[in-house]
Amino acid sequence: MKTSQLMLSTLREIPADAVIASHQLMLRAGLTRKLGNGLYSYMPLGLRSLRKVENIIREELDKAGLLEMKPTVVVPGELWKESGRWNTMGVEMLRAKNRGGQDIVISPTAEEAFTALVRDTLTSYKQYPVILYQINTKYRDEIRPRYGVMRGREFIMMDAYSFDIDQKSLDESYEKCAAAYRRIFKRMGLSTISVKADTGAMGGSGSEEFMVESEVGDDTLILCPKCDYAANVEKATCKSDVALDKDGNPQKATDLPYEEIDTPNVKTIDDLASFLKTTPQAFIKTLIYKVSNCGIELPGQKGEDKFVAVCIRGDLDVNEAKLCAILKASDVELACDEDVTRITDAPVGFAGPVKLTKAPVIADESISTMHDAVTGGLKKDVHFIHVEPGRDFTPFMSADVRTVKPGDKCPDCGAEFYTKKGNELGHIFKLGDKYTKSMNVTYLDENGKQQTPIMGCYGIGVDRTLASIIEEHHDENGIVWTMTTAPYQVAIVPVKYDGVMKESSDKLYDELTKAGIEVLLDDRNERPGVKFKDMDLIGIPVRIVVGEKNLPNVEVKMRNQTEANLVPLEEASSKVVQIVQEELAKLNA
Amino acid sequence: MKTSQLMLSTLREIPADAVIASHQLMLRAGLTRKLGNGLYSYMPLGLRSLRKVENIIREELDKAGLLEMKPTVVVPGELWKESGRWNTMGVEMLRAKNRGGQDIVISPTAEEAFTALVRDTLTSYKQYPVILYQINTKYRDEIRPRYGVMRGREFIMMDAYSFDIDQKSLDESYEKCAAAYRRIFKRMGLSTISVKADTGAMGGSGSEEFMVESEVGDDTLILCPKCDYAANVEKATCKSDVALDKDGNPQKATDLPYEEIDTPNVKTIDDLASFLKTTPQAFIKTLIYKVSNCGIELPGQKGEDKFVAVCIRGDLDVNEAKLCAILKASDVELACDEDVTRITDAPVGFAGPVKLTKAPVIADESISTMHDAVTGGLKKDVHFIHVEPGRDFTPFMSADVRTVKPGDKCPDCGAEFYTKKGNELGHIFKLGDKYTKSMNVTYLDENGKQQTPIMGCYGIGVDRTLASIIEEHHDENGIVWTMTTAPYQVAIVPVKYDGVMKESSDKLYDELTKAGIEVLLDDRNERPGVKFKDMDLIGIPVRIVVGEKNLPNVEVKMRNQTEANLVPLEEASSKVVQIVQEELAKLNA
Repeated sequence: MKTSQLMLSTLREIPADAVIASHQLMLRAGLTRKLGNGLYSYMPLGLRSLRKVENIIREELDKAGLLEMKPTVVVPGELWKESGRWNTMGVEMLRAKNRGGQDIVISPTAEEAFTALVRDTLTSYKQYPVILYQINTKYRDEIRPRYGVMRGREFIMMDAYSFDIDQKSLDESYEKCAAAYRRIFKRMGLSTISVKADTGAMGGSGSEEFMVESEVGDDTLILCPKCDYAANVEKATCKSDVALDKDGNPQKATDLPYEEIDTPNVKTIDDLASFLKTTPQAFIKTLIYKVSNCGIELPGQKGEDKFVAVCIRGDLDVNEAKLCAILKASDVELACDEDVTRITDAPVGFAGPVKLTKAPVIADESISTMHDAVTGGLKKDVHFIHVEPGRDFTPFMSADVRTVKPGDKCPDCGAEFYTKKGNELGHIFKLGDKYTKSMNVTYLDENGKQQTPIMGCYGIGVDRTLASIIEEHHDENGIVWTMTTAPYQVAIVPVKYDGVMKESSDKLYDELTKAGIEVLLDDRNERPGVKFKDMDLIGIPVRIVVGEKNLPNVEVKMRNQTEANLVPLEEASSKVVQIVQEELAKLNA
Repeated sequence: MKTSQLMLSTLREIPADAVIASHQLMLRAGLTRKLGNGLYSYMPLGLRSLRKVENIIREELDKAGLLEMKPTVVVPGELWKESGRWNTMGVEMLRAKNRGGQDIVISPTAEEAFTALVRDTLTSYKQYPVILYQINTKYRDEIRPRYGVMRGREFIMMDAYSFDIDQKSLDESYEKCAAAYRRIFKRMGLSTISVKADTGAMGGSGSEEFMVESEVGDDTLILCPKCDYAANVEKATCKSDVALDKDGNPQKATDLPYEEIDTPNVKTIDDLASFLKTTPQAFIKTLIYKVSNCGIELPGQKGEDKFVAVCIRGDLDVNEAKLCAILKASDVELACDEDVTRITDAPVGFAGPVKLTKAPVIADESISTMHDAVTGGLKKDVHFIHVEPGRDFTPFMSADVRTVKPGDKCPDCGAEFYTKKGNELGHIFKLGDKYTKSMNVTYLDENGKQQTPIMGCYGIGVDRTLASIIEEHHDENGIVWTMTTAPYQVAIVPVKYDGVMKESSDKLYDELTKAGIEVLLDDRNERPGVKFKDMDLIGIPVRIVVGEKNLPNVEVKMRNQTEANLVPLEEASSKVVQIVQEELAKLNA
């Protein structure tokens, strides 16, 4: 390809609304253009890299035995009603009506479509297992699309769905996909962090997120520097630590009964610590939470609104995601002042577990080593001291609801955690029979008995993966593509596309193209500096500069190195072919 | 690929709602499955052929210098408001609102998106010409989707848009696309009929439709058996023929004045011909049409509703599409009885051009050789005889508004036309400045002056093309894929996948796969008859049967031939590789 034919359109300035490197560089290098809010068009150069990312995904999935299909992007709302998600999907799902007045959905994901296809196609256990996938357009009506294609409204997703007849087979399907994912990201040159987690209560079920580090990541990751522990902060656990007194010794039990003290004008735990000349670890912090759709029985809580009192050591924070999971609730939120007052018989700030009757107490595990503690006194300006957990109050439930922080210790090896912001590129997930059951998918087993298959689902955000490659591989001059994902592998830049420089450039172009290398020949009538800057910006891995002064040598420079090498023109193509092939082999290994 | 891994799902029965061969066979062979009304999913086997069709299109367009891009499928309604089509596109365009309440469109076509991209990207004449394309999902809310993917609601379209600075450049872009289209359809093994037509009044503008014959085609084509004349009946013209009298001689002028005759109980032209003992050619048929949004001045016609009286020889029919084009109207329809009575002062059936004052007369060219004719008398049960056109009435306009029929003569070579039903696969079209003007696209010319580029647009319906290949290439046993579009090129069918037959099949599979051939090995534990039937149904071009009886020979059979050849196992792969390559070379030549 010659640059003059490519409709290349680079920008010197950083577009005003582009915050992160990939968004800036995709616009500056002319890979994408904004068509609307959260809607990005891929220009010819950008589409080439996008297709490479898609093809790496496709090759690895095909190799793993997955079958590619193509359901429609627009699907009948009926399918979503069957699964029950018509009601549970929020406004992010774009719905419309066709001219016949029937509900339709612009697919945000495709569990329903694939489940319906399998229901209509597979009848016997002999036809199982299958893992089906598509690489197709999706739409999510993000309230605030941003960071370019990193969080757009329309995007391309690879979504795969496995259908198995038993847990062992599902485990195998899941492992196949996990292995394929590792190869996919490795081949692209992406460093991913694997975050495993048990999801829900089903035995043996699990999930794994493939994250990349990102300053604007949606997720906070808790990472161990020594072992491979990695968890989303929403699920991270840490080694439990013993509660210490103000001198740094384990807290000791007291025989004194708990007693009221006046604490006027004391608002915060820190105020209270100064007031009592101790540390926040001496306090049992009590927070009243309102629980939505609680999945377990809560004593004394009837009607729509249910409440719990969560107790945790004063220096720690409650992790609402973990609390939510423990209560099998759809949501938890801090109770409003009015509810707190009603439940604690006191203004906000004096909640405590002792003598509390209007909400069951959930005690974080940190409480278990606390002694002689301070709690709220259920009266304005009153606290209790000498509180002994177990003696003075009995929690309804003890559980890990603590927010893990950097400095907390790894439960596996004891090293101190650090934290990173991350973005999810891929997710693999054992679904069980959620969709097959609600949508009545059955097969006949060996005994002719109707059974329900179980599913796994597996997704990769394709545009986000492309942007993440740029996030990881760029410098101040532009993108530094990995060889497997570069729109072109080699750029030939004649200082002037004329005379002997033109002849030499054309010769190199022909030789390299014949050898199967993807070459961009910058034939534009521009100053060399402009061409070098553009080739750096668009990030072609190998650059060959053909200048009159150097001939019969040409300059070969890798985009990720600062030094160029002079190579005789006659040897240049074979040398460059070797560089490209070695780099491809390394990534594809 | 092994058949057991392919989720192959063939049907013996013809699905109830499938009328045409391609729809029946795509369902029966398990290429597609219905997901909703007008919504079809491609199964793994079908997707392979679909991708081959896409790739042939892509290769030829890339070779012709077109650039592939990818705008979004969901686009802001704003763009359609800019072009003015927000109001003119009918209910076939699916509209929705995003959560911010902004109008969005699920693209039925993409003139607006590409025009917006060019507007934001190209600034100088130096950057022109460009031809951009996408192969992407489209949605049209067809009122009555049918014939499977031949007329679905969601479909894949290749749509290309050229941007040029002058007519000569547009002509070149257009020719590039026309040549690419011819290669595309040839490579797929599709016989297309090229229908050229001038579109509108712009000098040098034109269009060409690429049609395939289809019993359920949307279009009627008028074709010449001798030369390459081909036209949509809506636009076809024929050699003008002289009006004949009842003895078969050219009609002769009369000196007799026109005169009233009573024609009681005579309703039709045929009635009248018997009554007057002559032929329908003796009559001037007069039809009153109501014209919507007429683009030319019609004498005496004011207000909303405008009317014309169209005169044509009694044995011919008026072509409303041609009439519409001549009047530059948005629509024409036969006037209702009330309007006819008002305009002709008589009940329906007695309209005529003589003394008609309330509507201008449009005379078809067939009138020009008529003499001594019969017309309606503008009174109940009255006709005029001895009418001389020119003497007894003067048309406001003379034009070709005749419906061309089989048997009419080719205007180019005089041969007799025949007719076919056709479906449009592709269309190329010179657009001019319709979109660039309304959407304010400009560039600076050599003198630094702002200019408006002009456009061409080019489309291919991808799913419909795939279905058309099946329409043209099938027999009573199933699909007969062309080598370039087959999901797999070779099927290996062991009579039993066991013992020496398994070994031989595996050996062939490995040899062929290594040679780059796409092979399906039918490893299922089914009776040979079932496997043969399935392979015939799914239409793999070459079948190798490995049976114990024939070994060390195997049977090689082409899907489109009845005879099989016995070939020694040792030579089978090289023989089959040769067959595949020759067939590919022939189509791709």
